[in-house]
Amino acid sequence: MLPARSNHCFGCGPSNRDGLRLRFYDEGLGDRALCRVSVPKRFEGPPGHVHGGIIATLLDEAMGKANKLAGIVAMTRTMEVDYLRPVPLLTPLILEGWGVRREGRKHWNTAEIRREGGEVLARATGLFIAIDAERILAALAAQNGEQATKAKRRTKRK
Amino acid sequence: MLPARSNHCFGCGPSNRDGLRLRFYDEGLGDRALCRVSVPKRFEGPPGHVHGGIIATLLDEAMGKANKLAGIVAMTRTMEVDYLRPVPLLTPLILEGWGVRREGRKHWNTAEIRREGGEVLARATGLFIAIDAERILAALAAQNGEQATKAKRRTKRK
Repeated sequence: MLPARSNHCFGCGPSNRDGLRLRFYDEGLGDRALCRVSVPKRFEGPPGHVHGGIIATLLDEAMGKANKLAGIVAMTRTMEVDYLRPVPLLTPLILEGWGVRREGRKHWNTAEIRREGGEVLARATGLFIAIDAERILAALAAQNGEQATKAKRRTKRK
Repeated sequence: MLPARSNHCFGCGPSNRDGLRLRFYDEGLGDRALCRVSVPKRFEGPPGHVHGGIIATLLDEAMGKANKLAGIVAMTRTMEVDYLRPVPLLTPLILEGWGVRREGRKHWNTAEIRREGGEVLARATGLFIAIDAERILAALAAQNGEQATKAKRRTKRK
């Protein structure tokens, strides 16, 4: 199984009880990330069906996990979603994402939501920009440090 | 204020306590639907920021409400999201959707998420297909009727 993010991500964070808590597997598929999911009632759009925004969330997550399999951390720059058929709630679905093209830091991925029988219900393509995760985390840590120092100063003033 | 959907929609249903419960206003803007929103922590993607799928949800909802202002009920057929800058959590944001073109049952809309100062953080365009809501609701009602009849039969068998 792919390692789950230890954070609070709405899509895949195991610590976010309000999120989708998606768990992806590679199942020997190389750079293809696979997830089996049944979407609960709270994510409803049209009666009995998954909200279009949640469909986009599932597809974005699957493409993001394909980046992880390619060994990169990347931000979504653009995403195009093709809503082929309504996606039913509370139904076993297959979610799959994979890379299709790369040009330097630009990675184009695609993802699908399918019924177990194979029918494709929604599809997306996305452009992702690889980022230097260590540099970003260091910047966030520095920012947090600054905030902590400011908070200490505020406490002293009181 | 635009009438809120009385259903369980993840985006705008007032009865869905787990949803975004977006409330749109037209504020004399004609066919432009406007919403002020601050996204709670449970919809996190990158640390401190809104998940890309929730950004898509906000934009989809705003474009959907523009359809409502145009007097139609429509399904999202395709949506393209442009993630311009990270969208912060717990920050006052402006969400706006409007129609741009129409060809028969096809409606092209656009939507933006902006900071209060005007900076655009994300933008989407979508193609929506107008549907005959009464016909769809009648079909759903018939389907529910069938399910109710089947359930009664199952109950009698027990």
